[in-house]
Amino acid sequence: MYDLLSELFPICRSITGDGVRESYDIIERVISLCRTEVATGTKAFDWAVPKEWNVREAYVIGPEGDRVIDFANNNLHLLGYCKPIVETMSLSKLKEHLYTLEDQPDVVPYRTSYYDENWGFCLAHSQYASLIEGDYKVVVDATLEDGSMTYAETLIEGRLDEEVLITCYTCHPSMCNDSLSGVVVATYLADYLRQFDLKYSYRILFAPETIGSITWLSRNEARTDSILCGLVVTCCGDSGKLTYKRSRRGDTVIDVAAEHVLRHSCKDYLIEDFFPYGSDERQFCSPGFNMAVGSLMRTRYGAYKEYHSSGDDLSFVNAESLGDTIQKYIEIIDILEHNTTYVTTNPKCEPQLGKRGLYSKIGPTNPQSELIMLWLLNLCDGESSLLDIAEKAGSPFSSVRRVADNLVKHGLLVKDDLE
Amino acid sequence: MYDLLSELFPICRSITGDGVRESYDIIERVISLCRTEVATGTKAFDWAVPKEWNVREAYVIGPEGDRVIDFANNNLHLLGYCKPIVETMSLSKLKEHLYTLEDQPDVVPYRTSYYDENWGFCLAHSQYASLIEGDYKVVVDATLEDGSMTYAETLIEGRLDEEVLITCYTCHPSMCNDSLSGVVVATYLADYLRQFDLKYSYRILFAPETIGSITWLSRNEARTDSILCGLVVTCCGDSGKLTYKRSRRGDTVIDVAAEHVLRHSCKDYLIEDFFPYGSDERQFCSPGFNMAVGSLMRTRYGAYKEYHSSGDDLSFVNAESLGDTIQKYIEIIDILEHNTTYVTTNPKCEPQLGKRGLYSKIGPTNPQSELIMLWLLNLCDGESSLLDIAEKAGSPFSSVRRVADNLVKHGLLVKDDLE
Amino acid sequence: MYDLLSELFPICRSITGDGVRESYDIIERVISLCRTEVATGTKAFDWAVPKEWNVREAYVIGPEGDRVIDFANNNLHLLGYCKPIVETMSLSKLKEHLYTLEDQPDVVPYRTSYYDENWGFCLAHSQYASLIEGDYKVVVDATLEDGSMTYAETLIEGRLDEEVLITCYTCHPSMCNDSLSGVVVATYLADYLRQFDLKYSYRILFAPETIGSITWLSRNEARTDSILCGLVVTCCGDSGKLTYKRSRRGDTVIDVAAEHVLRHSCKDYLIEDFFPYGSDERQFCSPGFNMAVGSLMRTRYGAYKEYHSSGDDLSFVNAESLGDTIQKYIEIIDILEHNTTYVTTNPKCEPQLGKRGLYSKIGPTNPQSELIMLWLLNLCDGESSLLDIAEKAGSPFSSVRRVADNLVKHGLLVKDDLE
Repeated sequence: MYDLLSELFPICRSITGDGVRESYDIIERVISLCRTEVATGTKAFDWAVPKEWNVREAYVIGPEGDRVIDFANNNLHLLGYCKPIVETMSLSKLKEHLYTLEDQPDVVPYRTSYYDENWGFCLAHSQYASLIEGDYKVVVDATLEDGSMTYAETLIEGRLDEEVLITCYTCHPSMCNDSLSGVVVATYLADYLRQFDLKYSYRILFAPETIGSITWLSRNEARTDSILCGLVVTCCGDSGKLTYKRSRRGDTVIDVAAEHVLRHSCKDYLIEDFFPYGSDERQFCSPGFNMAVGSLMRTRYGAYKEYHSSGDDLSFVNAESLGDTIQKYIEIIDILEHNTTYVTTNPKCEPQLGKRGLYSKIGPTNPQSELIMLWLLNLCDGESSLLDIAEKAGSPFSSVRRVADNLVKHGLLVKDDLE
Repeated sequence: MYDLLSELFPICRSITGDGVRESYDIIERVISLCRTEVATGTKAFDWAVPKEWNVREAYVIGPEGDRVIDFANNNLHLLGYCKPIVETMSLSKLKEHLYTLEDQPDVVPYRTSYYDENWGFCLAHSQYASLIEGDYKVVVDATLEDGSMTYAETLIEGRLDEEVLITCYTCHPSMCNDSLSGVVVATYLADYLRQFDLKYSYRILFAPETIGSITWLSRNEARTDSILCGLVVTCCGDSGKLTYKRSRRGDTVIDVAAEHVLRHSCKDYLIEDFFPYGSDERQFCSPGFNMAVGSLMRTRYGAYKEYHSSGDDLSFVNAESLGDTIQKYIEIIDILEHNTTYVTTNPKCEPQLGKRGLYSKIGPTNPQSELIMLWLLNLCDGESSLLDIAEKAGSPFSSVRRVADNLVKHGLLVKDDLE
Repeated sequence: MYDLLSELFPICRSITGDGVRESYDIIERVISLCRTEVATGTKAFDWAVPKEWNVREAYVIGPEGDRVIDFANNNLHLLGYCKPIVETMSLSKLKEHLYTLEDQPDVVPYRTSYYDENWGFCLAHSQYASLIEGDYKVVVDATLEDGSMTYAETLIEGRLDEEVLITCYTCHPSMCNDSLSGVVVATYLADYLRQFDLKYSYRILFAPETIGSITWLSRNEARTDSILCGLVVTCCGDSGKLTYKRSRRGDTVIDVAAEHVLRHSCKDYLIEDFFPYGSDERQFCSPGFNMAVGSLMRTRYGAYKEYHSSGDDLSFVNAESLGDTIQKYIEIIDILEHNTTYVTTNPKCEPQLGKRGLYSKIGPTNPQSELIMLWLLNLCDGESSLLDIAEKAGSPFSSVRRVADNLVKHGLLVKDDLE
């Protein structure tokens, strides 16, 4: 994942443009994608797909004739969706279009102006402070014209048409944790899942944030009813603790499963209630959809100082964190896949476990698996799923599932007819 | 308010009598009142209006011929509803009818015997201890005979017949925080409200505690169905923190609104669950009415040592606390008045705020008003009122309302049809 | 109770056999019992009654000719349900059948092998470590053959057929706190209850753990619908704090009543949620029955180091703890018996208590009984039982009941018609 991340990092992505397409080309080396091009001007609910933006070069030449700011060095230097311009101006005029972070003087901020045509450059505040008086020539050789917005998806078909939606956003230029770490986790999650015979179908969606998910929803409105639940994948690679942001409903199966996995991870973690700002869960959880979509991250966007700046680079993320995060996604999916409801075949009193070789013959030991067996036999009344029982027993889902499988083998549990 | 309080303070009020009428005369200089005289013996549910009590003078002459206790000095000296008596007796006989506070030896307690004809005097324990042996002449020149009980009310009519009930009690003699501070807050609240075009009608009720509210309820039973909610106003002037005592139902709009105001007051406060002793909320929240009536106070009756004694005098209350308390009543009423339910016109995905000039063009700042906008657009699904949304967003109602008004102007929210 | 405990202690009980019958003979000196003999092989849901086990003698003769282990000294020495054997063997062969507690080297553990025919001895680890090499002669003169399992019960008939079930288990040999303390508390509770005219009928059940309660349930399935609630009585005599283990439903009347009694006991206590291991509540709370059966103990089985060993002897329990425990059972039953629902005859406003002599005439004192009176008048709306009101008022049930009785006498409360 870290290698893929490193390869994708330098490309200049935005909500439209060839950088996005190039990124999808690279991802297609791992998994196949079905791409959709949506023409500029296409309506999507209250929105319309914007013009397509592509940059050839962009720089500022200082009074001494050298390029003092150059997009070629770092694509964050250019305001996202910057309009074309060639103009010479004084320092003070230029400064009206420069963006810096005064409290982090050595990093370049990330700024955009998607829906208001403007031009600008971003740079380190230390450099900004050292600019000398004189004439500056601004050159932005870019196109901002009718074209199309690209999104891509892959469907891993399971036995059911019911889908689990995994989404990430592909609109950020050179930033690692925000956006890109989610893209690589989503990619390799798709690659991992396609090996298995799955119960649910899994849709992995790569799209620009906001306009991308809105457009996808507007074109797939009928499909949303068959989406069991989903997760927005982002901020997966920093070394902070895991954070789960609940869906708007807050108590759906994805919420319970994600919190279960974190609780049994033996590490500190954070649970946040839904709030209507953040990433694409805003759209999936808008009142007209109100889907069971949460988001599993490490340190949340906005909660680390490197967020939306050149500080969010390759050194800010690490392979180990990426690995730990994808592992948690896999564990959550494992729960979704196996969260069956069983019914005990012996509702009246416990069955005799000893005669089936399921119980310690002598002695006071009650190994964990025996206690789980007793929880299952007591709670498998058709009202509780395996996940519910794991929560009540305070045991990891995987252990409960393993013990349940054994009880099924012995004829002590059967699948709920209603399922 | 403090001036009105100072003027009302010396008058001898009780559950009946001319002191109450004189008090209403003074209040009528601020607001107009509609008075009701209810004849002695009139039935009110399980109760009957008692005889009317009026005192001309009352004193005790000591062995040395001087007035050792005199009602003219402090009306608390006389047992409330003391029957007429002229009698000379020994100190020991007298002491059977004297009431003091041994643990606060310098203050005069407040005692009454409304429904059991008796006589008595209250005095400082230090004076009690210094009374010398000898004959004491007790003179109570009072009348306790058929007459009437007076209550008064004012109705500030709003667009709806539905009423908000604000009640205070006018039966306490010279005590400032208990009873009288509520009377002046209720008076000036009425004076304030009548300036506005209001949604609800506001009924401000001045009546003796217990028998007064019971009599009012017995004569206005049919009206109670149209009372949205109410507050008992008392103990408004001490320098302690604010206390909200919940209604019996505990989760009505007045409970949520009052707690919201206190939570956003930036000061420490106290919430108490309903308990069936205290003031007139006992009657409004009796099971046959079970109205949405709570009580907003500062330090609760019984919770300060000056309670029901001469310690609860003009020095115990202050203008600043009275002002802070009435401000909170006004904020609560502001919530009731504007707690509309709106529905988003764009339930599916967020509307595009940028094109309406509602969103920061560049930059990472999300001012509080933008976050509130997102909360409103996400939660205005017809299920949640503005107050519900303010609670979820953790933002003051006034801010949420202001942002909602702006969204209405932009056509992004509309009033719920059902309202 | 301690005398009865001391007399029962030495007897070798198991899930079947003459030791159980002898124990019932002794209990019958206090209360009469109705015994049931269930033949070996009788089916009970998934189980069958096992063979009957009786021991004449059992010992191990060491290389020096003396009895190094002897059942006559302590019946815990013999593995429960040990099969007959006469055999001479080496120390190493013998050791395969010896059970000790390495971390408590001076106590003899309690072990059984009911459903897997085996032989074995239990001994102190210190003795085990000192056994010398040589030949050992093992003699177990026991019978393990078709017979019957004995359980016993007594029904104390009340005015209603609805029953409260009190169960204890009689299958443990010489152990005091686990099992036997419950047996003596149950015995004297039955003896106490039969003096009174009771509302509910009380069934006291003495049976071996697990197979006994399962067999009883299989033969009394129809009766379970008329069982209001129940308690499993065990671990009543140690000096630890009281523990209440909730029923599976967790919020039944027995749960509320037991927690109420512990909360008002003025002593520290423990509440545990239901878990499906432990004692016979496992069967009563199996999903097909899901009865309102909890368990009131002192230190829970498994939570003290003397559990299931010779450490759980007469010195581990004391008369005072037994007395305190039975007192709590009596208080819980007192609540069940008197947990009436009353309705106020004055739902609209408070009734006038003063004219009925129910309220302090003068003065600020509100004794606890007046506050309880106000709670009752406010909450007796037909929705809340006396126990519900005691919980809301934070007052002991007995006080609330006493005040309620007084209000009934004054015609202010009447029994709910629906009851």
